[in-house]
Amino acid sequence: MAVYTEVSDEELIAFVAGYGIGEVTSCKGIAEGVENSNYLLTTETGSFILTLYEKRVNPDDLPFFLGLMGHLAQKGIPCPTPLEDGKGQSLGTLCGRYAAIISFLEGMWPRRIMPDHCAGVGEAMAKMHLAGADFDIKRPNALSVDSWRNLLQASGERANEIQPGLAGFLADELDALEAGWPRKDAGLPYGVIHADLFPDNIFFRRGELSGLIDFYFACNDVFAYDIAICLNAWCFEADGSFNVTKARRMLTSYRKVRDFSDAELAALPLLARGSAMRFLLTRLYDWLNTPKDALVTPKNPLEYLEKLKFHQGVSGPGAYGLE
Amino acid sequence: MAVYTEVSDEELIAFVAGYGIGEVTSCKGIAEGVENSNYLLTTETGSFILTLYEKRVNPDDLPFFLGLMGHLAQKGIPCPTPLEDGKGQSLGTLCGRYAAIISFLEGMWPRRIMPDHCAGVGEAMAKMHLAGADFDIKRPNALSVDSWRNLLQASGERANEIQPGLAGFLADELDALEAGWPRKDAGLPYGVIHADLFPDNIFFRRGELSGLIDFYFACNDVFAYDIAICLNAWCFEADGSFNVTKARRMLTSYRKVRDFSDAELAALPLLARGSAMRFLLTRLYDWLNTPKDALVTPKNPLEYLEKLKFHQGVSGPGAYGLE
Repeated sequence: MAVYTEVSDEELIAFVAGYGIGEVTSCKGIAEGVENSNYLLTTETGSFILTLYEKRVNPDDLPFFLGLMGHLAQKGIPCPTPLEDGKGQSLGTLCGRYAAIISFLEGMWPRRIMPDHCAGVGEAMAKMHLAGADFDIKRPNALSVDSWRNLLQASGERANEIQPGLAGFLADELDALEAGWPRKDAGLPYGVIHADLFPDNIFFRRGELSGLIDFYFACNDVFAYDIAICLNAWCFEADGSFNVTKARRMLTSYRKVRDFSDAELAALPLLARGSAMRFLLTRLYDWLNTPKDALVTPKNPLEYLEKLKFHQGVSGPGAYGLE
Repeated sequence: MAVYTEVSDEELIAFVAGYGIGEVTSCKGIAEGVENSNYLLTTETGSFILTLYEKRVNPDDLPFFLGLMGHLAQKGIPCPTPLEDGKGQSLGTLCGRYAAIISFLEGMWPRRIMPDHCAGVGEAMAKMHLAGADFDIKRPNALSVDSWRNLLQASGERANEIQPGLAGFLADELDALEAGWPRKDAGLPYGVIHADLFPDNIFFRRGELSGLIDFYFACNDVFAYDIAICLNAWCFEADGSFNVTKARRMLTSYRKVRDFSDAELAALPLLARGSAMRFLLTRLYDWLNTPKDALVTPKNPLEYLEKLKFHQGVSGPGAYGLE
């Protein structure tokens, strides 16, 4: 949960006036999202999300994020669309921060994941991968394998405070990931990925997927890495067990829209280990460095250690329910 | 800010189905309010507030709070109205907590207080005091003078951690307040008061007051005590100075609806000291007892120490802008 910036009514009214959406009737901070300040804005013409970009977002990336949402929405992907002001700009400033008004998506994110949800995620992810093909701004994945050594060193031996031996385990795993990570010329299908498709970023209504949100980690990378992130985010149970039925539903729904190459299938276990490493490392860093009185409670990194170890034991895509 | 309870979609849909307001289209936790969990609920028929009552609210008080809101709304006071389910009940249960769906009020609370806001508060408060006259459930003020000695003892000498000498100062002030507090037979006009009319509980739109919210401290007490709370909450500037123009606008607008008795005017300085004591003591307790990693940041008690000292120097209502 997070609302970091207090927006005054005068500033808000002046900002919204530029968008031609009528007068502000209400604006309430939303207790969701951890990177930015989000408000549910209602005006005479409807509901919108007002986002103020806080310091963790690089302003240089905002044209990519906002442009991508607009591009995908135009291609029929159910995702938030940034509104343009009278000058055709979707990025403005409010309270000294970059800010945007974005269309409101109906639906709720699922608290209890069912196999049907995973099927919906697979299909929507594949459609998004295809729809991003002709988006012309590029953004490298700032949290891929090249970034992990610095991240690991930032926590260093303190990883052992969370679990004895963790620092050594992660050092060994990182060596293996760096050695085995697919090279750019390995031919894995590549394009725009979301890179953060966790359950709280996907809305459903009446069991049907109604929206994908929060594109603020989107980037260019191999599609299979997005799939690996979703296997970790959607297919493990609370007790740490891997639900192969959910994985099979996700992957078979995905491949109906865009089929996998053999190289992708072969790379999946390593990419899943890498995806687990990425979230483990950022959670580890946040866990060790979040002030005790912070508004945001850091997530436990050990959840991702267990996921990583599961994928270390996987020899092929059969473990994910594929024949 | 606070959302304490995570509501699953299945439970939410089942709960809302009992109210005849159509199907749920969205539900987002609101980062406002510290006592309960609040969600902005949208359905096919409109927007509502869903409140889950957390442990700081005594369930025995809920019929008073919900009944009062319904009573005042019926009398034309712009305040949230609890919806009734098919059985005529406004209090239900959701996720193991008492819960209610309440009408949504347009408007925003003012971040920068202007004298016009204070005039609106005075008028609305007086109308609310009159409208509560025939509300038939009673609730004593659990945070009035009788409760302060226990509250002060709960913090004890630790008050000196915040400011040296504070414990002694508060002990002396409490003696004075207990000795001088108006007795029940003193004839001060009495009825239902809101008891927490801070700026974030009053909405405005286009400069006009559009709603009073958060009745979860409402109780029976002398009207002038509600006024004293508002003098403290609305009429001091950020630098600690008392803005007599704001006070005069508030009090003169109030008395156009319900005039003050001489006894009320004479009691106002002491009631204002008492009101400052009440918020100082609860903030002091929270300051000393909130875990460092809590989601809610405690408010600084010393703000109310300065307000208390201002009223100690007041000899009559002239200091509040009344002739």
